[in-house]
Amino acid sequence: MFKTRSVTPGQAPATLTPHLVDGKTVHPKITLFEYDEVTLVEKEIANIEDAFGCFHNDKVSWINIDGLGDVDVLRKLGERFNLHPLALEDVLNTGQRPKVEHYEGYLFIVAEMIYLNKEEEVCGEQVSMFLGRNFIITVQEEPETDAFDHVRARIRSGRGWIRKMKCDYLAYALLDSIIDHYFPVLENLGAAIEDIENTMVEKPSRSCLLSLHEYKRTLVQMRRFVWPAREVATSLMHEETGLVRAETKVFLRDCYDHTVQIMDLVESYRDVVSGLMELYLSSIGIRTNEIMRVLTVMSSIFIPLTFIAGLYGMNFAYQEGDVKMPLNMPELHSPYGYVIVLGVMVLIAIGQVLFFKHKKWL
Amino acid sequence: MFKTRSVTPGQAPATLTPHLVDGKTVHPKITLFEYDEVTLVEKEIANIEDAFGCFHNDKVSWINIDGLGDVDVLRKLGERFNLHPLALEDVLNTGQRPKVEHYEGYLFIVAEMIYLNKEEEVCGEQVSMFLGRNFIITVQEEPETDAFDHVRARIRSGRGWIRKMKCDYLAYALLDSIIDHYFPVLENLGAAIEDIENTMVEKPSRSCLLSLHEYKRTLVQMRRFVWPAREVATSLMHEETGLVRAETKVFLRDCYDHTVQIMDLVESYRDVVSGLMELYLSSIGIRTNEIMRVLTVMSSIFIPLTFIAGLYGMNFAYQEGDVKMPLNMPELHSPYGYVIVLGVMVLIAIGQVLFFKHKKWL
Amino acid sequence: MFKTRSVTPGQAPATLTPHLVDGKTVHPKITLFEYDEVTLVEKEIANIEDAFGCFHNDKVSWINIDGLGDVDVLRKLGERFNLHPLALEDVLNTGQRPKVEHYEGYLFIVAEMIYLNKEEEVCGEQVSMFLGRNFIITVQEEPETDAFDHVRARIRSGRGWIRKMKCDYLAYALLDSIIDHYFPVLENLGAAIEDIENTMVEKPSRSCLLSLHEYKRTLVQMRRFVWPAREVATSLMHEETGLVRAETKVFLRDCYDHTVQIMDLVESYRDVVSGLMELYLSSIGIRTNEIMRVLTVMSSIFIPLTFIAGLYGMNFAYQEGDVKMPLNMPELHSPYGYVIVLGVMVLIAIGQVLFFKHKKWL
Amino acid sequence: MFKTRSVTPGQAPATLTPHLVDGKTVHPKITLFEYDEVTLVEKEIANIEDAFGCFHNDKVSWINIDGLGDVDVLRKLGERFNLHPLALEDVLNTGQRPKVEHYEGYLFIVAEMIYLNKEEEVCGEQVSMFLGRNFIITVQEEPETDAFDHVRARIRSGRGWIRKMKCDYLAYALLDSIIDHYFPVLENLGAAIEDIENTMVEKPSRSCLLSLHEYKRTLVQMRRFVWPAREVATSLMHEETGLVRAETKVFLRDCYDHTVQIMDLVESYRDVVSGLMELYLSSIGIRTNEIMRVLTVMSSIFIPLTFIAGLYGMNFAYQEGDVKMPLNMPELHSPYGYVIVLGVMVLIAIGQVLFFKHKKWL
Amino acid sequence: MFKTRSVTPGQAPATLTPHLVDGKTVHPKITLFEYDEVTLVEKEIANIEDAFGCFHNDKVSWINIDGLGDVDVLRKLGERFNLHPLALEDVLNTGQRPKVEHYEGYLFIVAEMIYLNKEEEVCGEQVSMFLGRNFIITVQEEPETDAFDHVRARIRSGRGWIRKMKCDYLAYALLDSIIDHYFPVLENLGAAIEDIENTMVEKPSRSCLLSLHEYKRTLVQMRRFVWPAREVATSLMHEETGLVRAETKVFLRDCYDHTVQIMDLVESYRDVVSGLMELYLSSIGIRTNEIMRVLTVMSSIFIPLTFIAGLYGMNFAYQEGDVKMPLNMPELHSPYGYVIVLGVMVLIAIGQVLFFKHKKWL
Repeated sequence: MFKTRSVTPGQAPATLTPHLVDGKTVHPKITLFEYDEVTLVEKEIANIEDAFGCFHNDKVSWINIDGLGDVDVLRKLGERFNLHPLALEDVLNTGQRPKVEHYEGYLFIVAEMIYLNKEEEVCGEQVSMFLGRNFIITVQEEPETDAFDHVRARIRSGRGWIRKMKCDYLAYALLDSIIDHYFPVLENLGAAIEDIENTMVEKPSRSCLLSLHEYKRTLVQMRRFVWPAREVATSLMHEETGLVRAETKVFLRDCYDHTVQIMDLVESYRDVVSGLMELYLSSIGIRTNEIMRVLTVMSSIFIPLTFIAGLYGMNFAYQEGDVKMPLNMPELHSPYGYVIVLGVMVLIAIGQVLFFKHKKWL
Repeated sequence: MFKTRSVTPGQAPATLTPHLVDGKTVHPKITLFEYDEVTLVEKEIANIEDAFGCFHNDKVSWINIDGLGDVDVLRKLGERFNLHPLALEDVLNTGQRPKVEHYEGYLFIVAEMIYLNKEEEVCGEQVSMFLGRNFIITVQEEPETDAFDHVRARIRSGRGWIRKMKCDYLAYALLDSIIDHYFPVLENLGAAIEDIENTMVEKPSRSCLLSLHEYKRTLVQMRRFVWPAREVATSLMHEETGLVRAETKVFLRDCYDHTVQIMDLVESYRDVVSGLMELYLSSIGIRTNEIMRVLTVMSSIFIPLTFIAGLYGMNFAYQEGDVKMPLNMPELHSPYGYVIVLGVMVLIAIGQVLFFKHKKWL
Repeated sequence: MFKTRSVTPGQAPATLTPHLVDGKTVHPKITLFEYDEVTLVEKEIANIEDAFGCFHNDKVSWINIDGLGDVDVLRKLGERFNLHPLALEDVLNTGQRPKVEHYEGYLFIVAEMIYLNKEEEVCGEQVSMFLGRNFIITVQEEPETDAFDHVRARIRSGRGWIRKMKCDYLAYALLDSIIDHYFPVLENLGAAIEDIENTMVEKPSRSCLLSLHEYKRTLVQMRRFVWPAREVATSLMHEETGLVRAETKVFLRDCYDHTVQIMDLVESYRDVVSGLMELYLSSIGIRTNEIMRVLTVMSSIFIPLTFIAGLYGMNFAYQEGDVKMPLNMPELHSPYGYVIVLGVMVLIAIGQVLFFKHKKWL
Repeated sequence: MFKTRSVTPGQAPATLTPHLVDGKTVHPKITLFEYDEVTLVEKEIANIEDAFGCFHNDKVSWINIDGLGDVDVLRKLGERFNLHPLALEDVLNTGQRPKVEHYEGYLFIVAEMIYLNKEEEVCGEQVSMFLGRNFIITVQEEPETDAFDHVRARIRSGRGWIRKMKCDYLAYALLDSIIDHYFPVLENLGAAIEDIENTMVEKPSRSCLLSLHEYKRTLVQMRRFVWPAREVATSLMHEETGLVRAETKVFLRDCYDHTVQIMDLVESYRDVVSGLMELYLSSIGIRTNEIMRVLTVMSSIFIPLTFIAGLYGMNFAYQEGDVKMPLNMPELHSPYGYVIVLGVMVLIAIGQVLFFKHKKWL
Repeated sequence: MFKTRSVTPGQAPATLTPHLVDGKTVHPKITLFEYDEVTLVEKEIANIEDAFGCFHNDKVSWINIDGLGDVDVLRKLGERFNLHPLALEDVLNTGQRPKVEHYEGYLFIVAEMIYLNKEEEVCGEQVSMFLGRNFIITVQEEPETDAFDHVRARIRSGRGWIRKMKCDYLAYALLDSIIDHYFPVLENLGAAIEDIENTMVEKPSRSCLLSLHEYKRTLVQMRRFVWPAREVATSLMHEETGLVRAETKVFLRDCYDHTVQIMDLVESYRDVVSGLMELYLSSIGIRTNEIMRVLTVMSSIFIPLTFIAGLYGMNFAYQEGDVKMPLNMPELHSPYGYVIVLGVMVLIAIGQVLFFKHKKWL
């Protein structure tokens, strides 16, 4: 579900390995946005060098790279913008913890986007961001999914703050968009947990248990990304190199609030899932108890009766000539034997029923 | 029970969405209090602009808005008092964590009121507050419930400190009123838990378990609001912009004490509920054990007896002419067979009873 | 067991409500100690104003009020010594967390005394203290119990430090006396837990479980007072207004040590009680297992035997005229049938016993 | 196992109570070491005043007192070296948390030695230390055990650092010797836990469980001494009164490392013991399950067969004169009845065996 | 699996004890690397004194010692480079917590390498490092395993940063190589846990449980090394003696990131293993429940039927002369008795099946 980096021990640091799809290099999709309050250029770029002409002016330049198939693109970007090789390595070694790293002239931000794939499974995708004074470069792990469409629409429309503000606000907008994607995933999970909860009260089953276990694992994994996401928001809020302006920090406080809410939700869900597991365990105990009660009541009532019936099915029939021996099952030869035995059985049964009623087992 | 904000990822920040009731905008109820030590004006306001005339003097002006149905009211307030759009968004996006945010010229305080609805369920309602130098604006989520009646009565009566103090004291009084509403809810919960505890000792049942699970969830959710409420009290106590005066901070310390007591109660209740769940699990174990003991004792006593009875119910009756074969169940033909078998059975039964007494199963 | 404050939401702060006994105001018992190294005045006071004549000199003046029935006493004290109404409210709203509050000219200290009542139950009583430069006022919740007798005896005897030192040392002595009362309560609890532990190893029973649950609750509640008690000791040790002199701080360090030891004990006991609960659950599991083993062994041995006996109790007796059909239970008509069947039964029984021995179920 | 102080509430602080053995005062064994790099005096002292002649010079003077039976010795030492009565009280009130306390002119150090007694039980003994500029006084609780023999041997031999360094190094050496005694105790415990682990995998038994519970308690109690021991090492390392020289602090870092290792071990063992308890609980569940499976398979196979046998043991034999009624158990009178019934029984048995094989219960 | 130091209490500090293999001293393998950007000398050294000629120049000199069999080598190194005896002791007392210690002129770094041995068990090996201004000495515990081959290859190839940088970078490269060895071990463990998870869902067995317990123990032990490894990275990053240059600190940040990722993985795995244990416990509960259900249904259906059959197997046959008494089992003599009894049995069976269907036990 979530990728973890596969490390070759002893490898030189900053080794760049492309992500292959079926063993083949897939050239990423590169888009460029360049805008200020009045002008907007948006184009798709085949060759990364084509984008290097801009970045000299007061505009905001945003390069978005969709896919990690081509190492050259990153290498050239690294040379052009003086990006540190370790940062570039982290872009490729996906599964990084969300973090903010300060480098000379830019910030390197790693975030994890969470989304539901077609099978309604929770998936994660690493989004890396380089935030400079007048440029912003984003690299997304998966070419198919895209977290930034709403932000693009807001840029195009020109409404709101986004066109009036600088790179740092765009970085905030992108980060906020990533973090807000957690909410629908969590709502989905919350609804699923509530479903389980209702089912469980009515009819606990093994599949409930497995689903709960599955949700628990998902929450454990989401937690690994949510806690550091809060740290990302905090360090951007307290960033002091001037790359993040004071007016953007007010918005980052909002973003921080969201990460805290997400953490709260994740922790609450964990509590609820743990509670449900406990509830389930108790429910099984209750059900076993109930089953045992039925078994015990049935057995305890009939076992003595069956014994009595067996007793009088014995064939003791000693006769000395024609003289019946009085010791040999005289009950069988008494005229009221059968009725009395039946009566005794009924009394025993009633006695036991009363006993079990008294014990509240019936 | 508690609302959680529903977020559209990628939405521009500070988008204001009204709360609709059955799909319709409901105009909120707006009340204005303006008072100093000697004068008091209290009026209901239909049009929010009508209130803008005041706020120039040394009086305390308090606008209370009941309901989130009309975005325009908030927007106009925002323009008049220079309220930040992100704060206004948080007013509408209910389910926020309690918090204090510092803006130029005012504090934005979010608190969560907890109350019992008619079905005795614990419900939450967000109360937002803007505390300026000479004004205070409060916005309540639910038009029906009202947390502030007692405070209004104190203002009207003119007794106590409230009319002698400024806006910050009013903010304290409102916050204190919100926090004090936690106590009856918790007392109610505590009584319910104690009820369950008593029932459980006498007669553990499945419905106890489900109630306990329910209380646990309620406590998990209350916790989400109680911890940050303490932070709200702390940050107001250590507020240094001058919006909160030193003489009010003494009262906030009292308010802080209350939040800590509430936290203590919530945590204690959680401990108790967890303990009860454990107790319940053990109780079921004990009951199953007891049931099994009865079953085992009954079965173990009667199974061998029934076997013996079955043995002498067998029809082995080989006769060569009239000569009885001595090997074919001679017991059946012995004059004391029946009595001896009965005796053996009684001995076996007594032996087992003694064995089970020794094992303390009887 | 422990009182919790009952709050009326929205009530004005610092509302003083007397504690009524059977609905009636009970006048508290007031005692005054005034002493220095050479002189000592000790008297019981009916009217609180009688005490106001002192407090001008270099002596230590200690007013102790036993019982919260009379609000007037507190109000007059408040006026005379300029005590803050919020502090007075806290004196009456018992169930406060232990705390130290700094007010102009005095410290307000709340502590919780723990004692065993006549039914050997753990009870708590709030003790409030106002420590000024030359006066100390203590207010105890319960008129019956008294924590301070030993301190009074030490004052009267004039031995030790107490008469040579000032108010702050008296405050330490009183606090230390309160905290040392935790030790016998905890020792009592520890002994009870050890009793349970021994019983449980020999004969686990439902009442053990309920006692353990009870102790756990008591410990949860004691914890609520012990942790803040440590903070009280710490803040008095680091008090910097001069109300607590350096020579007293050495003693407070000792007092702090005691609170830490109490915390250690409470936490250890919690660990032990949790361990015992777990042990109990396992014990029940083992016992059920043992019972099941007996049932299974008995059933498994006799069920096949009973079946065989039943088999030869069947009445298949087809005869064509006088010719016995060879297929109709020829065993019954074989001369060695009975012996062979008995032998088979014995073999089956031995086989099963060996099987169960192998499985270590016997 | 570990002593806890028994406190009389309200007692004056610094009351010295001797430890009595069978109600009698036992005079402690007192030894004096006085050494520098070239000279060494070692003598046993009957009267503590005899030792007061030294302590004026540049030598290291070490008084060791073995046993707490004589309060006078401590009182005289206290007067001679100006030791604070509260510190002396702590020497006698054993069961103190390990701690370092700063007094004018000396440090008061409390440590807990852990050792195995003859019954291989873990025991604790308080060791108190007064570290002055040119003297060191150690007081040991138990006269029989002695932690310091190795240190004495090192002093006598004159090898290593010990004779070249001052009092602070001796204090380190003693403390290190105390802390290193934890390792064999923990190794012993670790070996015992491993034994239990192996036994449990093969044959879980009730005694395993009780041993585990015992080890858990021991670990809970050791923890109470290990955590503060680390604090002792830290505060000596960061001691700034000059009583601990910089060259000794390097060694204290080593000592600190040991306390951290001990903590690590204790916590790991706690984890392992908890894991084993859980494993045990699961094992019992599995065994019960296995037993139930056997019972169920046996019962399910034979119960229907026994029923069929019982069916044909019924005595329905209605005859109208000599005419057999065809409805009255015609099977009994069919020539192949017996064989068919046996066949049906075999089929039922095979069917059930297949069913249970399918369920993986066989 | 992981060695723990065996301490002799009271031993003088800094006692050096060689590691013996089968009781014999094994001379370690010593290799020397001396390089700068252009030159490279690599040689194996028999006698440690041969290496002392270098270390005067601007080159990086790296001595690697493989094996702890020869104390003399360490002693001579200690004299030559002025290494503190306590550090040398820690080199030999393996099982140290990872740590960084500052000594005059060099840093002493302890790290733990984790690897899988041939039996796929997780093993640990202590690697000690002395980092001076122009030298680096590494000591590895196990002669067979070697963590540094990749680093050597990078030095020989001359590519990348390693030949251009100084000792501190080499120390980073070695540390990074050690830490990166955790990843394959953890991946291996993760795969094993996933295997167990899949098996468990299909067919829970006792061996799963034991494996899980084993993994849990391994994770508990790895944790003991991972947490301090993070501290090692942090203290090197914030090292201020100038031994670690600023340009290396960027790389150490990467190394720190890896330790945090490893911690995250270890903690996640612990969560998952705990979850699986819980799941297992519940699974057994479910299976027992299922088995009991079958037993109860079978028993409950057949027990009454068998009783009825037994009833009519009784031999009540009282005859007064030839007159049959109507009370003696008239059913047996009714022409439809058998059919009716069979019918009643079928009805009872159907009734019970319906009852169990209603209870959802079938």
